[in-house]
Amino acid sequence: MRTGIATVCLSGTLKEKMQACAIAGFDGIEIFEQDLVTSPHSPEDVRKMAADLGLGLDLYQPFRDFDGVTPELLKANLRRAEAKFKLMSRLGMDTILVCSNVATATIDDDELRAAQLTELAELAGDHGVKVAYEALAWGKYVNDYEHAYRLVEMVDHPNLGTCLDSFHILSRDWDTAPIENINADKIFFVQVADAPKLSMDVLSWSRHYRVFPGEGQFDLAKFMGHVVRAGYTGPVSLEVFNDVFRQSDTERTAVDAMRSLIWLEEQSAKWLASSPTETETAAGNGSASRRRYPMELATLPKVNEPAGFNFAEVKADDTVQLEKLLGQLGFGFEGRHRTKDVQLWTMGQARVIINEQAASHSEPAIAALGFDVDSPVIASARAQQLKAPVVARKVQADEEVFQGISAPDSTEIFLCQGSPDGTAAWTHEFGEGLEHSAAQQNAVIDHVNLAQPWQHFDEAVLFYTSALALEPQPFAEVPSPSGLVRSQVMETSNGAVRLVLNLAPAQQAQEKARKTYQEHIAFAVDDLVATARSARDRGLEFLQIPANYYEDLDARFDLDPGFLATLKELNLLYDRDATGEFLHFYTATVGSVFFEMVERRGNYDGYGAPNAPVRHAVQYDSLHRV
Amino acid sequence: MRTGIATVCLSGTLKEKMQACAIAGFDGIEIFEQDLVTSPHSPEDVRKMAADLGLGLDLYQPFRDFDGVTPELLKANLRRAEAKFKLMSRLGMDTILVCSNVATATIDDDELRAAQLTELAELAGDHGVKVAYEALAWGKYVNDYEHAYRLVEMVDHPNLGTCLDSFHILSRDWDTAPIENINADKIFFVQVADAPKLSMDVLSWSRHYRVFPGEGQFDLAKFMGHVVRAGYTGPVSLEVFNDVFRQSDTERTAVDAMRSLIWLEEQSAKWLASSPTETETAAGNGSASRRRYPMELATLPKVNEPAGFNFAEVKADDTVQLEKLLGQLGFGFEGRHRTKDVQLWTMGQARVIINEQAASHSEPAIAALGFDVDSPVIASARAQQLKAPVVARKVQADEEVFQGISAPDSTEIFLCQGSPDGTAAWTHEFGEGLEHSAAQQNAVIDHVNLAQPWQHFDEAVLFYTSALALEPQPFAEVPSPSGLVRSQVMETSNGAVRLVLNLAPAQQAQEKARKTYQEHIAFAVDDLVATARSARDRGLEFLQIPANYYEDLDARFDLDPGFLATLKELNLLYDRDATGEFLHFYTATVGSVFFEMVERRGNYDGYGAPNAPVRHAVQYDSLHRV
Repeated sequence: MRTGIATVCLSGTLKEKMQACAIAGFDGIEIFEQDLVTSPHSPEDVRKMAADLGLGLDLYQPFRDFDGVTPELLKANLRRAEAKFKLMSRLGMDTILVCSNVATATIDDDELRAAQLTELAELAGDHGVKVAYEALAWGKYVNDYEHAYRLVEMVDHPNLGTCLDSFHILSRDWDTAPIENINADKIFFVQVADAPKLSMDVLSWSRHYRVFPGEGQFDLAKFMGHVVRAGYTGPVSLEVFNDVFRQSDTERTAVDAMRSLIWLEEQSAKWLASSPTETETAAGNGSASRRRYPMELATLPKVNEPAGFNFAEVKADDTVQLEKLLGQLGFGFEGRHRTKDVQLWTMGQARVIINEQAASHSEPAIAALGFDVDSPVIASARAQQLKAPVVARKVQADEEVFQGISAPDSTEIFLCQGSPDGTAAWTHEFGEGLEHSAAQQNAVIDHVNLAQPWQHFDEAVLFYTSALALEPQPFAEVPSPSGLVRSQVMETSNGAVRLVLNLAPAQQAQEKARKTYQEHIAFAVDDLVATARSARDRGLEFLQIPANYYEDLDARFDLDPGFLATLKELNLLYDRDATGEFLHFYTATVGSVFFEMVERRGNYDGYGAPNAPVRHAVQYDSLHRV
Repeated sequence: MRTGIATVCLSGTLKEKMQACAIAGFDGIEIFEQDLVTSPHSPEDVRKMAADLGLGLDLYQPFRDFDGVTPELLKANLRRAEAKFKLMSRLGMDTILVCSNVATATIDDDELRAAQLTELAELAGDHGVKVAYEALAWGKYVNDYEHAYRLVEMVDHPNLGTCLDSFHILSRDWDTAPIENINADKIFFVQVADAPKLSMDVLSWSRHYRVFPGEGQFDLAKFMGHVVRAGYTGPVSLEVFNDVFRQSDTERTAVDAMRSLIWLEEQSAKWLASSPTETETAAGNGSASRRRYPMELATLPKVNEPAGFNFAEVKADDTVQLEKLLGQLGFGFEGRHRTKDVQLWTMGQARVIINEQAASHSEPAIAALGFDVDSPVIASARAQQLKAPVVARKVQADEEVFQGISAPDSTEIFLCQGSPDGTAAWTHEFGEGLEHSAAQQNAVIDHVNLAQPWQHFDEAVLFYTSALALEPQPFAEVPSPSGLVRSQVMETSNGAVRLVLNLAPAQQAQEKARKTYQEHIAFAVDDLVATARSARDRGLEFLQIPANYYEDLDARFDLDPGFLATLKELNLLYDRDATGEFLHFYTATVGSVFFEMVERRGNYDGYGAPNAPVRHAVQYDSLHRV
């Protein structure tokens, strides 16, 4: 698959964008006209830069409001088009995008449109240019890709074809199956963009909220499957207007973009294999059938979703407070590593590493997570093919080698060999000579909340989806005293791994506000009340829940008075839904970390969302009172 | 008019919110339930705090999903309601907001709803509570205020009335005139919120984009006029869910909120005076009629829109570069002030003050603007009644006293005595003994662009609307290499004063990016080509416009080759529309300021918007190359 990206997806100057696209590994780019018009580089310079960078100049865009106009306007439009065709010749480009008219069209008549497009195609032919005509979702008369293609067929000129853009098609819910009926020679270009499903006017949606494939909710694998079946072999190019990407680091966004196409390629191949046509099924070659299509789809090493958390690692300069907190929660100290300055603490299958190698004065923070995978080497290879940066850790010859990658928020993710009994072989590298406490209560890491930088939230969703096979759930917004916190759960189908990506209020400037959205690690136990009592007896400082909360809880749930008194006594929070119950409590904060202990009753699958505002308010209040 | 505000409008804890509301001067507040539930303060504490602050506790809210339910759910709902009624008694509150059911309603039957609301009203009566039933815009069955009122009438119980919320009514485009038919005794509460007109689902619109009156596009004066005519005398309370306000400074947002109600009060009185009812017209007491309504509407000193810019002031530690730039543009030095460290530079009626009193190492920046008004003292009184902070300047006994207020971005705004011939009396305080150059070309300040802090953009719109009688125009979004720049024009009806409020990409973290969105002052001249030539001869450094721009310009406008060559030679930008033509050029940047010179031909009323991306790109590029 030939990969491409429109320069409008990225921040910076044309030159910065081109360099970033080359570094990220794109085959070609679309030149968005404004990027050229505002550039100090001549068309000849741009042509040379592209050649030097090994980038194809695959599409010049956009040419707007051409068709369905009066004769006078047609004349001006043809003059304008010829100027652009000459410019393209200096750029060494041969394909231009012409969008269906949104503004100046006055006549709704396919015969007239076809006649005007014929004039354009002939002029284009004189200059060796191919015109890719595209139906915009908000086109005045032409807003359906099949309509655009009918016009292309009516004109029937070698220099006129169509451009298929997934956003314009999927935002309108057009059926994508008829794409297979389009003559592949007439598909001059394919643009892909994903988007969250929003209920708003399609123009604003398109101009501000598009995201890269895998970061939204469109079924792009199916869209691409139909394109591949049509026989298309040209560029598959990202055209993503996004307010955040436009202001983020150019090179990093380009890598995120490239990752999305690699992932889309794999998903498209999967869709093709799992959705054979009737002909293919009849021929008995269903799943292998994709090899028969002209477009080559690269694949990645396959991985299953992770089986569980292997460990969580917290880093600090001064680790005394962390050790105290874990001890009070009931974790046992399993000793120090034999060669590194790290400690291991466990409770059942929940393993926490305290890393003492942090820079001086750095506050406690979550540094790394380990996931149990079938094959760390294969999972790591996949992640690297998806352009995840590799993290290296020094190891002695006889120690387990950890395969590590860096997540978009810089958390280190280690791909570990899972075991059927939930143990981890590397724990033997700790506490040599120490007697391990056998009698600990059962516990696992239930979920981990990670604060995401605002520029990398969508990137993080794609990262965990593509590299770690986690599934994004519908996002929530949690009110806090400093604004709304966006919360995105990523989890495995069985809930064994649950990550919560949090986006603090976008514009937090104040340090004191930022600190209220700490990251945390939650552990699940079988008997939360007993755990809480033991922790209290060991002197744990609980997050103090206001009395008003318990009154509201009682008004909502009509709880047994004894149970309610227990909740209140131990600062426990409570939630209930049709599937079960959820009990949890939080510790005070150390640096930028705190811990949560949870008990899931029945099939409760949530995170106590109604209680999140309480947690935020109490944390905010305690910070403001200091 | 009794003023109120819901705690959900503000950031912070309940205590912080209450203090801010008291400081801003509100009569009462609505307690948003979550703010109480998450508070460490008991209901009794809250009651005492409110009493100490002189704040009424006017509404407890919201109580959701009560009506149209099954008998089992009704029982649970009544139990939940009774718990809240008891809580309200501890708070000393007597009115609760009950929203029409959006979630659990299963039965669409007004008889049943009325029966269930009767049960609620009876229970409320037992606890001395009044229930204000409100139709949410997205209520499952009840989403129209007239429907809610019909139910109130059916129930006909002293403890059941309705709540009118401008957002729920105006977002659905319901006719507001029938409000006058509602029995005033049955209007238990009125909530007001403005909003920009957005095409999106009404729930998201309501939860994220509400703004204070005067900051959006709803006709709230008319809404309030009908409420006043209905005979309502209770609280008029702001309920504004806004993502930005929720994360901004609590006290400052409360002041912005209070300003919006003061302004709304005036606008409502105006609407009433200008829209007499048939009865009033027949009685011949049209414009004085508002005095006949039970609600007292306070008024403000009236001001007309400003007649022009009196001056612009730029401040710097080192003023050499500014002096050089103004000299090159053709400004004449009119001397220093006789007692202050400021210089006066003029070109025709365009006056620029260079203030040398800036803190050391501070870069050149726009510090103040003067506006010509009919009466500076009255305009200042009005601004102060609208809670604009006063700016004081030291003056000698015989010097003109400037009335100054501080705009939301901290720019100082001076209200100056205009003169019929466009001169300013205070200029005689400058350059005593200097001979003033008489022969300067005609020029005026055309517009001034001011960068706004993201938290105060909406506040700024209301500030200039209410205190300075400028009219907001539809906003634009300008692409730049660092993201989209939001641009909001505020101007007088004749264009004599034009302010452009710019909001840089929300999340700009990098200094180098921030610097590309500088503020600037634009001057209009009669012959831009001549001005540019003279400036060039004096050595002015122009912002360098790329050659690609002129090619695109020609493709778009088919310009005379000689004219195009002149534009290119002088780095002039060009725009044309049906009303006229616009020529302009920019200077290089000094500190955080640059200047623009413009020529308006015909009735051209814009700002060369298609050229703004070029300006941004060149400025970004020049900063990145340094």
